[in-house]
Amino acid sequence: MTDPEGLDTEQQPTQLRVLAQLREMILGGRWGAGDTLPGERDLATELGCSRASLREALRVLEAQGIIDSKPGGRSTIRSRARSAFGSVLELQLALGQYTTPELLNARVAMEMWAARQAATTRRPEHLERFHELLTRMGDPAIPVREFNQLDAEFHALITTSAGNNIVTDLNRGLRAAIELQMVKAYDALDDWWESTHTVRSEHWQIYHAIERHDGELAAALVRSHITNFFKPALDGEGRLF
Amino acid sequence: MTDPEGLDTEQQPTQLRVLAQLREMILGGRWGAGDTLPGERDLATELGCSRASLREALRVLEAQGIIDSKPGGRSTIRSRARSAFGSVLELQLALGQYTTPELLNARVAMEMWAARQAATTRRPEHLERFHELLTRMGDPAIPVREFNQLDAEFHALITTSAGNNIVTDLNRGLRAAIELQMVKAYDALDDWWESTHTVRSEHWQIYHAIERHDGELAAALVRSHITNFFKPALDGEGRLF
Repeated sequence: MTDPEGLDTEQQPTQLRVLAQLREMILGGRWGAGDTLPGERDLATELGCSRASLREALRVLEAQGIIDSKPGGRSTIRSRARSAFGSVLELQLALGQYTTPELLNARVAMEMWAARQAATTRRPEHLERFHELLTRMGDPAIPVREFNQLDAEFHALITTSAGNNIVTDLNRGLRAAIELQMVKAYDALDDWWESTHTVRSEHWQIYHAIERHDGELAAALVRSHITNFFKPALDGEGRLF
Repeated sequence: MTDPEGLDTEQQPTQLRVLAQLREMILGGRWGAGDTLPGERDLATELGCSRASLREALRVLEAQGIIDSKPGGRSTIRSRARSAFGSVLELQLALGQYTTPELLNARVAMEMWAARQAATTRRPEHLERFHELLTRMGDPAIPVREFNQLDAEFHALITTSAGNNIVTDLNRGLRAAIELQMVKAYDALDDWWESTHTVRSEHWQIYHAIERHDGELAAALVRSHITNFFKPALDGEGRLF
């Protein structure tokens, strides 16, 4: 069967079949984290497909953070997922498939759980890192971009202290999806340092609650911190500030 | 530059560039939900790449749930994301990139937030649907697979009632990633109906808490429900039952 441009329209089903075969091989335990897959030529022969179809399937697994591709056609299974979640969410927000309030509330959900959990599981090195981040964020000479990076790290540290990589990765993704909007919003402020007074103060409160093992307070503070900061977005039509 | 198999190793950077260009077009608002992209031939010409490179980039966007591909080389922007999140997570669990307890606690995080929120936002049609599901799950003649499907729908309904599509989609994905393990675990039980007595009872309690606008109770019940059900997995080495 050919399409109006004279192309083999069976190509898509082939690629989907190849992807399914690769999935089964992974689920069946043929490869583990860090393993190198056979070369594209051998793998295509084994799967009975063209190298073009194989490559399309490998690209999908690569985009999903499952494998790393290397020049020369060799792929390796990643030992730690590199989530494409944030960049996909960014597109979905642009397309209106999700709204900013939905995204912020998903963050609230994750981070409330993490703060409550972190109040139990946080280790001395987490507390030291919290303290270091907050001290650096309190330096009036800090550039706005660095402040924003440390802010992201502060929130990631809450989920890291809770010891859950899925929550950490999802939360990073949720944050990354609106990172550009946040940086632009900060840039548009003449008095960004004054405006972030509340942010700094609330960060310290969250840190102290986690330090004092008060999980309920930490969770409540995280909720009001995120909700207050993004109040204009949550009240309005879904745009930040 | 060629690799030992005589292939052009520039192909990967080309595909990555093409993917980045398509992303920019979407973020810039060139297409909206439901729009049809130009044919592959025209789009490849516009982007200055081969049709093979374009197709690899389109496959990635398709795998990410951003576009639908159709025979004949035309792609459309999806109006509602079809998340590949569950199937990716399933691979990541198989590869040991995440553990089952991490996944279950991410579910707890999402569903506690959703239950608390649903107690405020649930509408009459949500309550009717809850009641219908629970009544069907109380029929002793129900086959185990149907019970499991209704169970999944019950939990999805909590997040739907909270009105957050991201939380709903992430939670569905977290559940889907261990769906096969759950079905096998149920199948292995001689007395699955007896064993699910607690499940049925706890479902009714969650429903009543949401109905009575008691968000704190609903959240606490959801936490103990999921934690108790998967206790063997959470206590042990990460395997279900």
